[in-house]
Amino acid sequence: MTARTRPFNFSAGPAMLPEEVLREAAAEMLDWHGSGMGVMEMSHRGREFIEIYETAERNLRALLAVPPEFRILFMQGGGLGENAIVPMNLSRGGLVDVIVTGAWSKKSLGEAGRYANACAAASNEASGFTTLPAPASWELREGASYLHLCSNETIHGVEFQTLPDLAALGSSAPLVVDCSSHVLSRSIDWSRVGLAFAGAQKNIGPAGLTIVFVREDLLGHALPICPTAFDYTVVAEHGSMFNTPPTYGIYIAGLVFQHVLRQGGVAEMERRAIERSQLLYRYLDDNGGFYRNPVAADARSRMNVPFFLADASHNEAFLAGAREAGLLQLKGHKSVGGMRASLYNAMPLAGVQTLVEYMKDFVRRHG
Amino acid sequence: MTARTRPFNFSAGPAMLPEEVLREAAAEMLDWHGSGMGVMEMSHRGREFIEIYETAERNLRALLAVPPEFRILFMQGGGLGENAIVPMNLSRGGLVDVIVTGAWSKKSLGEAGRYANACAAASNEASGFTTLPAPASWELREGASYLHLCSNETIHGVEFQTLPDLAALGSSAPLVVDCSSHVLSRSIDWSRVGLAFAGAQKNIGPAGLTIVFVREDLLGHALPICPTAFDYTVVAEHGSMFNTPPTYGIYIAGLVFQHVLRQGGVAEMERRAIERSQLLYRYLDDNGGFYRNPVAADARSRMNVPFFLADASHNEAFLAGAREAGLLQLKGHKSVGGMRASLYNAMPLAGVQTLVEYMKDFVRRHG
Repeated sequence: MTARTRPFNFSAGPAMLPEEVLREAAAEMLDWHGSGMGVMEMSHRGREFIEIYETAERNLRALLAVPPEFRILFMQGGGLGENAIVPMNLSRGGLVDVIVTGAWSKKSLGEAGRYANACAAASNEASGFTTLPAPASWELREGASYLHLCSNETIHGVEFQTLPDLAALGSSAPLVVDCSSHVLSRSIDWSRVGLAFAGAQKNIGPAGLTIVFVREDLLGHALPICPTAFDYTVVAEHGSMFNTPPTYGIYIAGLVFQHVLRQGGVAEMERRAIERSQLLYRYLDDNGGFYRNPVAADARSRMNVPFFLADASHNEAFLAGAREAGLLQLKGHKSVGGMRASLYNAMPLAGVQTLVEYMKDFVRRHG
Repeated sequence: MTARTRPFNFSAGPAMLPEEVLREAAAEMLDWHGSGMGVMEMSHRGREFIEIYETAERNLRALLAVPPEFRILFMQGGGLGENAIVPMNLSRGGLVDVIVTGAWSKKSLGEAGRYANACAAASNEASGFTTLPAPASWELREGASYLHLCSNETIHGVEFQTLPDLAALGSSAPLVVDCSSHVLSRSIDWSRVGLAFAGAQKNIGPAGLTIVFVREDLLGHALPICPTAFDYTVVAEHGSMFNTPPTYGIYIAGLVFQHVLRQGGVAEMERRAIERSQLLYRYLDDNGGFYRNPVAADARSRMNVPFFLADASHNEAFLAGAREAGLLQLKGHKSVGGMRASLYNAMPLAGVQTLVEYMKDFVRRHG
C-alpha cells in the first residue's frame, strides 16, 4: 500500500473520482489545450467542445462495445428524470412491465404509471429486497411496450449478474435497463437490450449528466406531451445539442473514459470490482456475527454493499472512527439504516483493505 | 490595462467565467476545505455539500433581493427544458400569453402550445426582432394562466429595460420571465414577477444548471403528466434534492455569487454592463458604416450585441484576425449571421476596449 493523503470516499453518489482525472481537470481549468478557455467557458457549438464531445462518445462506445444501431445521448435529469422520460418516449401509452428489485425500480414503476398501464411483473419486496426474482417466474404481459429493470439497486445492494433474455422468455418487448450505479463496471449484452440509461454521478463522474443508449428502431414514438428537450428522437437528431448540454460534466466523463481505457477497459474494471467486493463480502460473512450483509449470495452487488452492525448502538462510534481513519461517507441510506460501502471503479483495492482492517479493529475494541 | 494572458471570450453561452472563480475551483478540485473530497465527489446529502448549497442560495437571494415568498429552485434542463416545465406547472391547461421578441420567446410560445392554449399577445417579428412591442399594444387575454416574456433575447440582442406592470395593464396574470442571459446584470422588480428562470450557462456559470424563482402561491398546480422530477412543488418541498442536483454546477454558481458580492453586487454589475455596452454601441453607431447594429436604441441589450459588417465578404478575415488578437467566439448565431459580442458580467471593460481597437484597426486595413 503506497502512501496516500486523500481519504477513501465510499459515497453512493456523487462519488469518488480517479485522482488522475481530478488533477487533469484542475490543471486545465483555465485553459484547455491552449485554447485560452476553460471547458466551462466554451460554446457547446465551438470546435473545441465538439472535439471533447466526440472523443467522449467514441471512447464510451469503445469501452462498452456499443453497436452502431444504438445512439448515445447525453442528457439531463438523472435517473428520476428518466423514470418519466422513458415512458414518455417508449410506452406509447400502452403496457409497461417492471421488475421490482429495490427502491429504484419501485420508483420507476410508480412514475411509469403516470404515462402508461404499468405493472410489476415480479417483485422481491417480500424478501426485503435481498433476492432477485427468477426470470422464469416473471409475469410478462403480451404486447408490453417494454420491460424495465434496474440492473443494480444502489440502496438495497442487489445486482443482476446477467441480463435476462426476454425472447427466450417468450416476450418480444424491448428491455429497458437502469444501469446507473454499475455502468462501466461490467460489459453489457446489447443483444438483450433496447434502451439503457445511467446517471453519471455514481460510476462515471459529475451529477447532472445522464447517458442514454437507445436502439434506433425505438425512436419516433414519443407521446405528444413529451417535452421537446427530453424527446429522444429530437436529442438524437441534434447530436445531444438541441439543448445546451451539461458541457463540463461531459468533459469530466470523457476524462474518466480515457482513464478507464488506460487502466485496461471495462474487463479490468470488472476484475477489480470482483476483487474489491469479494474481499468485503468474505469478511462480512466470516466475522463472528458482528457485521452482516443480508443479500443472497447470487444477488449481491459488486458496487454497493450495505451492511449492519448486530448492535446498532455502535453505529455512531463506527462512523466517527471510520472518518478518523480516512474512510468517508459509510452511513447507510436513511430508508434502510446501517452502513453502506459503495465500491465504484474509482475505489482502489487499498480502500477496501483499509476498511476491512478498520472493521476488524473496531470489533477488537467493541466486540 | 494590465498585462493579461487569457484571451477575451465573447461566447453567448456557455461563456467566460471570472478568472478568480476558475482559480478557486482548480485549487479546491481534490479537496474542498479540508474535507478530503472534491466537490464533485460529495454526496449531495452530506453536510459539506449542504453547506455549499445553502450558502449559494443565501447569496443569490441577497444579490437579487429575492423576497421570502419566492422559492429558489436549482434544477436541470436549461431554458428549453423550462419552455415545457413552466406550462406543465403553471398553465393548468388554460390560456398562456407570450410576448414574442426574438428566437427564444418564439420557441417558448411553440412549446407552451403543446400543453395549453398559447398565443402571441404581441410580436416584433415584423421588425426582424429589432424593436420591443410597447406594453400598451399587448393583447392580453382575460383569465390567462400567465404571461411569458424573455427579458433578454440572446440571439437578437433586444432587452427589456423595465419589466411590465401587468396589473397596470389590467391583467391579473402572473408574469413569467426568462432572464437566462442577463440575470445578475441588473435588479429584478419582484413585485411584477410570478416566476423567473435562468439557465446558468450565460451569466452565472456552468451549463446544466437552471435556476427557478417561483412565488409560493403559484405552486401546487402541476398537470398530471408533469414528470415528478420537474414538478416545482416537489422540487421545492425537497429543497432541490428530490433528484440528485447538478452539484458541481451549484458549487461554481456559488463561487460566482461570492465573487459578484465581493465586486459590489448587482448594482456594480449593472454599472459595468452599461459602461461596456455603451462603449461598443457608441462605436457601432459612429464608425462610418463599416459595422452596424440593427436594434432600436431603447431595445438594445447590454449583454448580447449582434453586429454586421456592411461587406459580409470580410467576415472570415474579421474572425480570424480577432482570434489572433485574443478575441474569441465572436461569430454570430447561425440564424442571423454576422457577429455577436456577448458582454456578460465576467467580461472586463478591457475586453471591449480591445475589441473596439481591433475593429478600428480592421477598418484601417479593409475599409
